[in-house]
Amino acid sequence: MLDVEQLLSRFNPATGEISGVPVVKRHLGDLRGCFADPKAYEAALAQSNPLLYSVAAVEPAGGDGDLHYGVGMIMPGKIGDEYFMTKGHLHSWRPAAEFYFNLAGKGMMLLEDEATGESRMVELLPTVAVYVPGHTAHRTMNVGRTPLTYLGVYPAKAGHDYAAIARNNFRCAILERHGKPELIERKTLPSAASYP
Amino acid sequence: MLDVEQLLSRFNPATGEISGVPVVKRHLGDLRGCFADPKAYEAALAQSNPLLYSVAAVEPAGGDGDLHYGVGMIMPGKIGDEYFMTKGHLHSWRPAAEFYFNLAGKGMMLLEDEATGESRMVELLPTVAVYVPGHTAHRTMNVGRTPLTYLGVYPAKAGHDYAAIARNNFRCAILERHGKPELIERKTLPSAASYP
Repeated sequence: MLDVEQLLSRFNPATGEISGVPVVKRHLGDLRGCFADPKAYEAALAQSNPLLYSVAAVEPAGGDGDLHYGVGMIMPGKIGDEYFMTKGHLHSWRPAAEFYFNLAGKGMMLLEDEATGESRMVELLPTVAVYVPGHTAHRTMNVGRTPLTYLGVYPAKAGHDYAAIARNNFRCAILERHGKPELIERKTLPSAASYP
Repeated sequence: MLDVEQLLSRFNPATGEISGVPVVKRHLGDLRGCFADPKAYEAALAQSNPLLYSVAAVEPAGGDGDLHYGVGMIMPGKIGDEYFMTKGHLHSWRPAAEFYFNLAGKGMMLLEDEATGESRMVELLPTVAVYVPGHTAHRTMNVGRTPLTYLGVYPAKAGHDYAAIARNNFRCAILERHGKPELIERKTLPSAASYP
């Protein structure tokens, strides 16, 4: 049965909401261990626990050939020199790719090849799409001054694996240097000793 | 190797182009047999052979778990009471779903369950996404007065099957009635005798 109300989603590109779909919210306190500067993180958290990002996902069906999709919204802001960002994930089913498309604001993505550790930053600007291949950890950040919203589309059976990144984080961080985002190996940062 | 230039696509939502990607163009003459009113079709074609729509597709990889994506642009206009539209297709790999997202203009989609013939029209308005399940023929039309652009994302192995629709067309047509799109069974139309 083709149920039109099930097949149609109304997006709000300004807020990152999809009508009728629950929104998962992540606050600063949910991202302990993610940011490169733990002192700046703890100092910010002692002041307040702001919303960093939200995700709303639509899962119309779960079979082979089906797709899931969602909208992410990341608030503008920084912890030290590092932009507000998502935890990042790999797909549980590693071959699963993901399509990202910017809806509003100025984003950046950090991609890391799981096998080689090779890392790249890719701009997620308005009207830009980023293709995240399978076997690639990915994290999104807001490098602008207004909320960033973007949509993601991925195979229904992709699944989300947050554990690998919670354990080892990404090899690189994207920090603001001279007013611009720069890809920097975490182990070269002075605060690296605080993390495994 | 993560090649940023390969992973990033720049869209032009106004023209339906993606930088560096070839655009396939379909003109009125390419759609013989698609429209419900063959007399109006031949009369229009005798006058001119305008562009009806274009498609630009990006195919980053072809494995299981990979995705392809593209942008469609449909010009405003009608043949008789029927809106300018795409040929429509099924996926060669029938379970493959497709995600559509409106980028500009006012669209409508015609969905038809291949097994039952059950047909639906679904609005593809700005900020709206339409999920086309597997095993579902789909055709897109421009029901507004400006170009319609939209993006589509689908499993890399979906493939396009145009033959089934070239043979039997869709069971229903979407025609303008009292200024609004209406879903009408083709066999009830006076011109139906002209088509198989």
